[in-house]
Amino acid sequence: MIKAGIIGSTGYAGGELARLLLQRDDVEIIWYGSKSYVDQKYASVYQNMYKIVDDSCLDDNIEVLAEKADVIFTATPQGYLASLLNDTILSKTKVIDLSADYRIKDVAVYESWYKMVHKTPQYIEEAVYGLPELNREKIKDARLIANPGCYPTCSILSIYPLIKEGLVDPLSIIIDAKSGTSGAGRGAKTDNLYCEVNENIKAYGVGVHRHIPEIEEQLSYGSNNPVTISFTPHLVPMNRGILVTAYGTLKKEVSSEEIKAIYDKYYKDEYFVRVLKDDITPQTKWVEGSNFVDVNAIVDKRTNRVVMMGAMDNLVKGAAGQAVQNMNLLFGLPEQKGLKLVPMFP
Amino acid sequence: MIKAGIIGSTGYAGGELARLLLQRDDVEIIWYGSKSYVDQKYASVYQNMYKIVDDSCLDDNIEVLAEKADVIFTATPQGYLASLLNDTILSKTKVIDLSADYRIKDVAVYESWYKMVHKTPQYIEEAVYGLPELNREKIKDARLIANPGCYPTCSILSIYPLIKEGLVDPLSIIIDAKSGTSGAGRGAKTDNLYCEVNENIKAYGVGVHRHIPEIEEQLSYGSNNPVTISFTPHLVPMNRGILVTAYGTLKKEVSSEEIKAIYDKYYKDEYFVRVLKDDITPQTKWVEGSNFVDVNAIVDKRTNRVVMMGAMDNLVKGAAGQAVQNMNLLFGLPEQKGLKLVPMFP
Amino acid sequence: MIKAGIIGSTGYAGGELARLLLQRDDVEIIWYGSKSYVDQKYASVYQNMYKIVDDSCLDDNIEVLAEKADVIFTATPQGYLASLLNDTILSKTKVIDLSADYRIKDVAVYESWYKMVHKTPQYIEEAVYGLPELNREKIKDARLIANPGCYPTCSILSIYPLIKEGLVDPLSIIIDAKSGTSGAGRGAKTDNLYCEVNENIKAYGVGVHRHIPEIEEQLSYGSNNPVTISFTPHLVPMNRGILVTAYGTLKKEVSSEEIKAIYDKYYKDEYFVRVLKDDITPQTKWVEGSNFVDVNAIVDKRTNRVVMMGAMDNLVKGAAGQAVQNMNLLFGLPEQKGLKLVPMFP
Amino acid sequence: MIKAGIIGSTGYAGGELARLLLQRDDVEIIWYGSKSYVDQKYASVYQNMYKIVDDSCLDDNIEVLAEKADVIFTATPQGYLASLLNDTILSKTKVIDLSADYRIKDVAVYESWYKMVHKTPQYIEEAVYGLPELNREKIKDARLIANPGCYPTCSILSIYPLIKEGLVDPLSIIIDAKSGTSGAGRGAKTDNLYCEVNENIKAYGVGVHRHIPEIEEQLSYGSNNPVTISFTPHLVPMNRGILVTAYGTLKKEVSSEEIKAIYDKYYKDEYFVRVLKDDITPQTKWVEGSNFVDVNAIVDKRTNRVVMMGAMDNLVKGAAGQAVQNMNLLFGLPEQKGLKLVPMFP
Repeated sequence: MIKAGIIGSTGYAGGELARLLLQRDDVEIIWYGSKSYVDQKYASVYQNMYKIVDDSCLDDNIEVLAEKADVIFTATPQGYLASLLNDTILSKTKVIDLSADYRIKDVAVYESWYKMVHKTPQYIEEAVYGLPELNREKIKDARLIANPGCYPTCSILSIYPLIKEGLVDPLSIIIDAKSGTSGAGRGAKTDNLYCEVNENIKAYGVGVHRHIPEIEEQLSYGSNNPVTISFTPHLVPMNRGILVTAYGTLKKEVSSEEIKAIYDKYYKDEYFVRVLKDDITPQTKWVEGSNFVDVNAIVDKRTNRVVMMGAMDNLVKGAAGQAVQNMNLLFGLPEQKGLKLVPMFP
Repeated sequence: MIKAGIIGSTGYAGGELARLLLQRDDVEIIWYGSKSYVDQKYASVYQNMYKIVDDSCLDDNIEVLAEKADVIFTATPQGYLASLLNDTILSKTKVIDLSADYRIKDVAVYESWYKMVHKTPQYIEEAVYGLPELNREKIKDARLIANPGCYPTCSILSIYPLIKEGLVDPLSIIIDAKSGTSGAGRGAKTDNLYCEVNENIKAYGVGVHRHIPEIEEQLSYGSNNPVTISFTPHLVPMNRGILVTAYGTLKKEVSSEEIKAIYDKYYKDEYFVRVLKDDITPQTKWVEGSNFVDVNAIVDKRTNRVVMMGAMDNLVKGAAGQAVQNMNLLFGLPEQKGLKLVPMFP
Repeated sequence: MIKAGIIGSTGYAGGELARLLLQRDDVEIIWYGSKSYVDQKYASVYQNMYKIVDDSCLDDNIEVLAEKADVIFTATPQGYLASLLNDTILSKTKVIDLSADYRIKDVAVYESWYKMVHKTPQYIEEAVYGLPELNREKIKDARLIANPGCYPTCSILSIYPLIKEGLVDPLSIIIDAKSGTSGAGRGAKTDNLYCEVNENIKAYGVGVHRHIPEIEEQLSYGSNNPVTISFTPHLVPMNRGILVTAYGTLKKEVSSEEIKAIYDKYYKDEYFVRVLKDDITPQTKWVEGSNFVDVNAIVDKRTNRVVMMGAMDNLVKGAAGQAVQNMNLLFGLPEQKGLKLVPMFP
Repeated sequence: MIKAGIIGSTGYAGGELARLLLQRDDVEIIWYGSKSYVDQKYASVYQNMYKIVDDSCLDDNIEVLAEKADVIFTATPQGYLASLLNDTILSKTKVIDLSADYRIKDVAVYESWYKMVHKTPQYIEEAVYGLPELNREKIKDARLIANPGCYPTCSILSIYPLIKEGLVDPLSIIIDAKSGTSGAGRGAKTDNLYCEVNENIKAYGVGVHRHIPEIEEQLSYGSNNPVTISFTPHLVPMNRGILVTAYGTLKKEVSSEEIKAIYDKYYKDEYFVRVLKDDITPQTKWVEGSNFVDVNAIVDKRTNRVVMMGAMDNLVKGAAGQAVQNMNLLFGLPEQKGLKLVPMFP
């Protein structure tokens, strides 16, 4: 039995982690950590858990938790884990961090985009970027996993094959991303009220969103050249789901069939990445509640561009599901264990 | 391995049956029956199933299917199964009917409300009304299960304890029900277009909805007196979920605590019925994707009435999940097998 | 030119008042009052007003405003106006109060339901309940209008004809009401976040909602007997709209045609109340953005009950539109002036 | 009194035309044309019009209508008007065509993208592209107005100033557009059912959408160079609204302030185009129900690109509102007449 603790269990990503882990018989959640709800029943914070979870929320004392847990998930604000992590913790437990603290290798880049000083840069080198489709082997031996961001997961998986194969100009990529509102978290803000989001769509963080350096870094590894992207996220009136529509200039003439063959080459053994047939475009509803990413790419000969698309559930493959996928790898379990959820439609 | 066939697999209830059964390793779906999509890939009808189901749709020949299947689910229009059922089929396989064909014991009542002649009334007597919380033992030995309607499931489970205990006047009950739009099916009708349903709520079928006699019959069994209800369904802009708000006149003074104790008495061992604490009101989102029904009742002393409330997912406990629960009972399996899904929130 | 001031202009009802008044050429808004946004541009609070309103928010000093305004609208929390109102204000300006401070004639009832001491009960007698369809003549001469609540407006107009005619048992009435989320206001609360409301429906305030005494008082005037109601409001995933489904026991046998004739008798000259034909049920989308209330009633012979339904836009006829209708009456203008908005569909 | 007829009045754009024209006292709708609902009450097709419109639908005989009407709006399928238009009609009445029949000057381009033969190409030259912000003077004297498409209106107004000023590379433009579902029309299709659209977002028509040549032609006029665009429309779960996010490579270094100054130069006298301040991004909800287009542009120095954004109501400025704006110009009326609707929020 794997003993798991969740620091930040009362946010949406934390709640989703609980949902996924509670459906397993080989994992026990021993710690529902929270800053705001200590001593309150977890099921009073998430009534969907009523009669499923009887625990009350504990504080976020990661040092105490490290004594007891085989794995700790931190679904916490930026900088939180970085301010606490130490050798003792890492010697006693595995840590899967859903924040961005250890995602970016260049600490200067991190500090510039996140506008904070990194308190424990000494662990950045060791941390493994937890995108199993790219880093499966490294993940297996890691102590510290930097679980990827939601937009980066969907963007990278949509674009990676063509950038890796050198088919797309690394300076041409434009990513227009659309996210459901759970990505904005459970904090009580006027901007996220039902009446403000419903029947509305907007762009935000144009050119300055903090997922930009994360996407650029990972794609640059694939390209062996610096990749610079334009990235615009949008808030969409739905609870879950991210859709990425990415545009890249083709470096040579290539047919749709060749493009498809490349995606198949990269993903044919990847359970969680589904390359759609023909010109079928990904839809977020087709992956809701599951760990799948649906991708496809369409060549636009008129403009010599390729449109690369991906859809996933931001709380599953974009956060909690991917964290569980990483946990499976860390513990030598089948990667799909507990994650073969069929998407819920409608 | 239980071999299961689904007639009507391309409607929303059929799709949900597939979703639930595909997550099990002891059931194999051997027949995706369809009227409109024969020979088309099932995953092209439900793209969420892509790379999960490779089968194509078969026709709806229940006689051929009965030769091969251990259990047949019929998620078909009213009158369809009634026009085909025969002894041969019932001798070879179990049948779980998600239509209303065998739910109502009085064939005259059926024919009056459904405005059609019942073709095989000889099987009505034998059919077991598949609400496990009321009829668990009978279900275990049945050949033919009449899987309850969505509104009836939620209404009966919300009201039954108080009617059974004789606390509520059987002629006083008013049920105001609200359903997500998946209850209206996948047929292409203007009334169910996104733009017509979104930002809108309406009542429909006032006083004439066909679930009325089904609810009245089952509550009358509990009451040992004829129960006559007012029932008004409403269409709500959401995909899934039914909320029942039922009003009954109390036959004697009773406290909220006593009411709660009665619900606990009936449901304390029922995994799928959650009696909420205090005055917490059920919310459909708290049960989405799961087989739970959340119920609660609040006494309104001023009016001498009790407000009985229930929330469930119309496609799960209201259709496919309940059918699987019945299948589990039919095959001597643990009743919760494959149904311990944690509700998805948000 | 009527000079109008709005205290509480930055809530949803205040914003709707601005929307309606800005479309008129005989009214000038001279005061956008606010507690939280003083000195900020009103159009930065409501970006839909950009380039339409250039004013900044002022404070909520009603005494200063009374010197300048011909009419003051107070869209403020309960008890606010009651704590400030005085003879000087009322001698200088008309006041249309969108809060509940002066709606209920029995101060003890008010204090019991609202759980606060009424600071200026001396104005309750004088205040006119601003439902023009019932109190048109009194409104014309008033200084202080108690603008009705959203649920009461829809409930009373749906039920009044039958209670007035003595056809419905005054102790039998059950009102099941459904509201869009704008009724919950613009305050930043977790419960009203998009992800908590979307794909969800729930009852709230069962038996204790503060609109109950208001509805009972007005219906009792019609009945000449005490009316006691069961009332359950529900939160629905849509921005605007209230649907009322009310149930009453008929005191004698009456046909649907007779019922319809009664509604026609009461409303045939009422521009804003539309009695729907046949068994057509009201839909909130059909009145969105307009001052209409659509009503209809269906007799259920089986149960000897009548189902009375009404739909309206909670921010228009349920708040700002009705306030403007009252303003028109107060100033001797045509009642429909500025309110002949065609509902927006879809 | 202007006598107006609407051919295709029962689609969403036709219904919106009725909504806008009914609020005027200088226009009379004399013809509610329909193919499917002849002799049925218009208010039974659009119940929001109940007690506002008493007319029944007439057929779509444009020749008869031309005898009576001062202006005819055709909100009809592609090719419909082109198959009927003749000199007699144009000699008797003004025609404002909401279809694409006369939008594209090069008939070969039209026939290639629309995959149909143009029946009356002789009128293409005469037809004026009815985007008042670009073609105001020509519109005033026209007989035949080609009312722009929804995506083109929003795209062109968002991009035009920078392409006209030569600041953006005409071959670099990528338009990622998002539309509410009313853009898909009122036809009963499974893809547009509530349950299929809700909680979902997808791209469609990637690289092949028929609005592409329309946008390219108009931008090319501005550029004096051929403009070739990538264009990807998306279906968003909301009724109304289009958001355009367009990306262009800057031909020289330019500051955000300079960019803003250019937009102000083009739009400072345009009532319906609102250039937002600072880095505020357009939101569709801020323009809902109105004829406004909100635009803004943000320079991304890292990538040397500019992100140009626009939001509007697809049924108003994207269809019916613009048609009314054109009608005003055709009849020498103030351009904003009947269109000074304040956006509805929330």
